Formats: sequence, C-alpha cells, structure tokens
Amino acid sequence: MSLSPRFFERLKSWQDLVNGALEHMVPRLSGPAARLTEAMHYSLMAGGKRLRPILVLAGAEAVGGSFQRLLPLACAIECIHTYSLIHDDLPAMDDDDLRRGKPTCHKAFDEATAILAGDALLTHAFRLLAHEDLEAAFPADRLFRVLRLISEAAGLYGMVAGQMADLLAEGRPVSPEELYFIHHHKTAALIRASVLAGAVLCGADPEEERALSDYGWKIGHAFQIVDDILDLEGDEETLGKPVGSDLEKKKATYPALYGLEGARKEARALLQGALESLELFGPEADFLRDIAYYVLERKL
Amino acid sequence: MSLSPRFFERLKSWQDLVNGALEHMVPRLSGPAARLTEAMHYSLMAGGKRLRPILVLAGAEAVGGSFQRLLPLACAIECIHTYSLIHDDLPAMDDDDLRRGKPTCHKAFDEATAILAGDALLTHAFRLLAHEDLEAAFPADRLFRVLRLISEAAGLYGMVAGQMADLLAEGRPVSPEELYFIHHHKTAALIRASVLAGAVLCGADPEEERALSDYGWKIGHAFQIVDDILDLEGDEETLGKPVGSDLEKKKATYPALYGLEGARKEARALLQGALESLELFGPEADFLRDIAYYVLERKL
Repeated sequence: MSLSPRFFERLKSWQDLVNGALEHMVPRLSGPAARLTEAMHYSLMAGGKRLRPILVLAGAEAVGGSFQRLLPLACAIECIHTYSLIHDDLPAMDDDDLRRGKPTCHKAFDEATAILAGDALLTHAFRLLAHEDLEAAFPADRLFRVLRLISEAAGLYGMVAGQMADLLAEGRPVSPEELYFIHHHKTAALIRASVLAGAVLCGADPEEERALSDYGWKIGHAFQIVDDILDLEGDEETLGKPVGSDLEKKKATYPALYGLEGARKEARALLQGALESLELFGPEADFLRDIAYYVLERKL
Repeated sequence: MSLSPRFFERLKSWQDLVNGALEHMVPRLSGPAARLTEAMHYSLMAGGKRLRPILVLAGAEAVGGSFQRLLPLACAIECIHTYSLIHDDLPAMDDDDLRRGKPTCHKAFDEATAILAGDALLTHAFRLLAHEDLEAAFPADRLFRVLRLISEAAGLYGMVAGQMADLLAEGRPVSPEELYFIHHHKTAALIRASVLAGAVLCGADPEEERALSDYGWKIGHAFQIVDDILDLEGDEETLGKPVGSDLEKKKATYPALYGLEGARKEARALLQGALESLELFGPEADFLRDIAYYVLERKL
C-alpha cells in the first residue's frame, strides 16, 4: 500500500495547525528572558514532523471528538518532545551538533541556555495542560487522568527512565530485554500517551482506550526501529545529520541486535499489529491507520 | 525578638513530616531506572530546610485549612526546588562541587545522570500535583489554579527566567532593576507560590490571597538577600560550601550593589513589610510570622 496524496495534504494541514498554535501558545518574552524564549522557539520550530500532536488530534477523531479544543494539549506534548531532544543533544548526553540539518540548541546558543530552554519547555507543557480553555471545555476528572498519563509517560516511569537506560547501555552489548526497555520507555511511552490523551479527553470508552493504547505502543516501537534503520541507511541530506552516528556511539539499536532484515520484519509486524488494534473502529480511525503506514515508510 | 524553642520544635516536626512524605511519594525503582531514582533521592535528602513545603502547610493553616491532605502539593514544590538546585549546580551553569557539605549531584553521580534526575524531579512534581488524593480532597477549579500558579512560578515567567537572567548578568555590573528581576524570578516567585498554593487549595478569599501573596514576595526577596549575605560572611561549616563563591563567580548580589549594611537594612525592612501583610490574620498566621523571622536570622 502507498499513502495517498490526500493523506499528505491532511498531514500538512494538521502540521500547519499545530505550528500556528505553538507560535501562539509559547510566548516570546522581552527583557532578560528573551534569550530563553528565543532558544525555546528555535528548537520548537526546527522542522519537527509534529507526529505526537497530530496523534493527539487523530486519537480524538477516532472516538468522535472535536479536535479544535485540544490544541493546548497537542502543543504541550510537542513542548515535552522538544525539551527531550534539547537535553538529549547536550554534550554530557548524546553530544550531537546537528539535528534536522540545523545546529542543536546548545550549538546555536550555549549549553546553559539549552539546559534552561529544555527546563522551561517542560514546565510550560504543564502550564498548557492546565490551560483555561481545556478546563472550560472538558470534565475535570478527564483532565486529571491526562495529567497523570502524560507526567508518567514523560518522567521516571517513562521517557526519562528510557534515556537513563540508553546512556547506561552505551558501548556494551545489550540483551533483547534491555533494548525493549529502552525503546518502550524512551520513545513508545510518549507516543502511546499522545494517542491516548486526546481520546481520553474526548470521552473514549474503556474498550476504545485499550485499542488505542495498544496501537500507540506498537507504532511507538515501530517508530524507534525505523529511526534506528534510518540512522544506518537513511539519506544524510533528508535526515539533516550524519548517517551511522548510533554505530559510532555504540548505541543499543534494533538492527545491531537483529540485523537490518530482522529490524524491517519486526517494524512490519508491529504495523500489522497496530492496524489490527484498530479493528473496532470504522473510517473515523482511517487517519490513524495512515499514520501507522507513514511511521513505517518515512524517510525522515 | 528571638525565636522560641517551640518554633524550632514545630519546624522540626514539619520537616520530619515532609521528609517522610517525600520518601513515600518519590518512588525508588529497580532495573535501569534505579540509578535515576537513586540520584533523585540523593539530592532530595541532602539536608534541605524544607522551607517551601513548610510554607505550603503554613499558608493553608493561616486560612484555617487542614494540611494533612496537602502533602502531595508540598512534596511537588520540594521536587521542583531540588531539580532547580541540581541543574543550577551543573558545570555549564554555576559549576558547584559542594552543596550543604555534600558533593553536588553531578559530582556524586555524573553530569548526564544529574540532568536526567532534575528532569525527572520536575516531571514528577506535576505527577504529584495531579495526585489522586488531591483530586479527591479539593475542588477541581482550585487545583487547576494551583497548577497554573506553580507552572508559571517555576517556568519561563518565573524561576527559569531568573536563572537565565542571573547567568546573563555574571561578570559584569548590574543595575538595581536587573538585580530585582533576578531575585524576583529566581527565588521569590516559587517561595510566593508556595505560601499561596496551600491557601488557594484550602479556599482562601481574595483578601487573604492578596495578603499571603504580598507576604510571599517579601520573604522571598528577604531570603535571597540573606543568602547573598551568608555567602559573604556565613560559616563555611554550617553552610557546607566555600564562603565568597558569589564574589569569585562575579555574581550579581545585593551586598555587591548596596553594601553589607544596605543589604541587612533591606532584609529587615522586607521582614517588617511581610509582618504587616499578615495584619488581617490572627494567631492562625503565627507560624508564618515566625518563619519570616527565621528567614532573616537563619545561618544556613
């Protein structure tokens, strides 16, 4: 199957929607904080695909929700994702100079500014999750569930634990269980929380939640496997960073453990599983289905 | 006036209460995340005075609230404070090796672990603010207000902006306005939010809120001025770090701009102002009054 031009048009229009909302929801301050908000916007606007915020909106659509009112939630998750990239790129962490063809935040500014820009993006994400418009539009109990869902997926039960495990695994052979732990926490947890968060706010029933959670885990793992493959054989110009950097850093990756063919096979199996998770939905989940293909076939 | 032994007994018992709650509310994980939660607990338990969580409880008491149910909020604010210390101590920031007589987090562990421990503490703070017990005990609209209050005080409108301004001011003369900006954002914002947050949750009326907000700003500024004074003439053994480090780093401080006597005078004036802010309260605010003296007279 190949993705239709209509999918890419829709993807582009949702990306534009998210970009406009981010510009609006992350302020640009003057005075001594100007450098801080400049660094935040620099990294926010560095050409991200907006996969996670789009999953928020698509998850809501799958359960019949109207997604216009979800923009603070979608932007909050993109702020969390962007903070994690800024901190991961730091010299003490992955020490990357380029991301999507542009200097990383600590290269464009400096290390202290990059640390603070990440801290401010993470904090601002929770300011957005407590947004007056969300409070007015959705029942409070759902909002609290979403706050717990996202803070768990992003923090010590999720993404930060995954990054810790990734660093601890560098330079030595890892077991399949360790690699699974890393992918599950570092990447899949926030992707799964994104799909689920929009749906929970819009009143998904337990069966729908289970299905979307399963879909989210599967495309989350597939996303990281494809990332590992692209690092080995992607196009440097499209990726905007040197190919082979995982190998050079002796990072734990799926192809290193299972070979390129094994990695491709697993990514396809996850896609298949993700599509099966959506069986209880009708055409209202077609965009989620297309996103699963997109995650598998992306070049960036 | 000197503080009574009863004040110190009460302070100690509230510190113990907060310490016990922190141990309980910040998990210790096994597996790859063990190092992460170990670093978080290392810095959380490094001998902090627990001023901010105690202000949460004392602010609630001033408006007649029962503070037992506020512990997740109190712990959340201590997590935010601790994350800010860990990140401020990093080599790219203030580059400090010692805090309260113990190696800083990046010295005891390593830089990457310290960055991640800070990130996880900040994220976990919001997990605690969305705690099931808070949701059950307090009206949702108050909880959302507190979420906004704290995320603004900690992020780009508050603490992080203050740290950015502090770094930008290093090594050059600063104006009184710049110094005020730094103290206001870096230190006073979170202290003021602490006093206010407990009171807001417990249903403070607008007049009480204004009074506690004013008290909070004033003791927040006094706290930072006293900090600057202690850095110049405190006792190294009590402080657990070298005296004169602000001078060495050419930090913007109150005594540098106004002299030691000027700094002492301003701290006393702020104490007086803080006590006046509390005039509408009776004995239920006595602990807040004592804390104001304590902030001024502390040696640590």
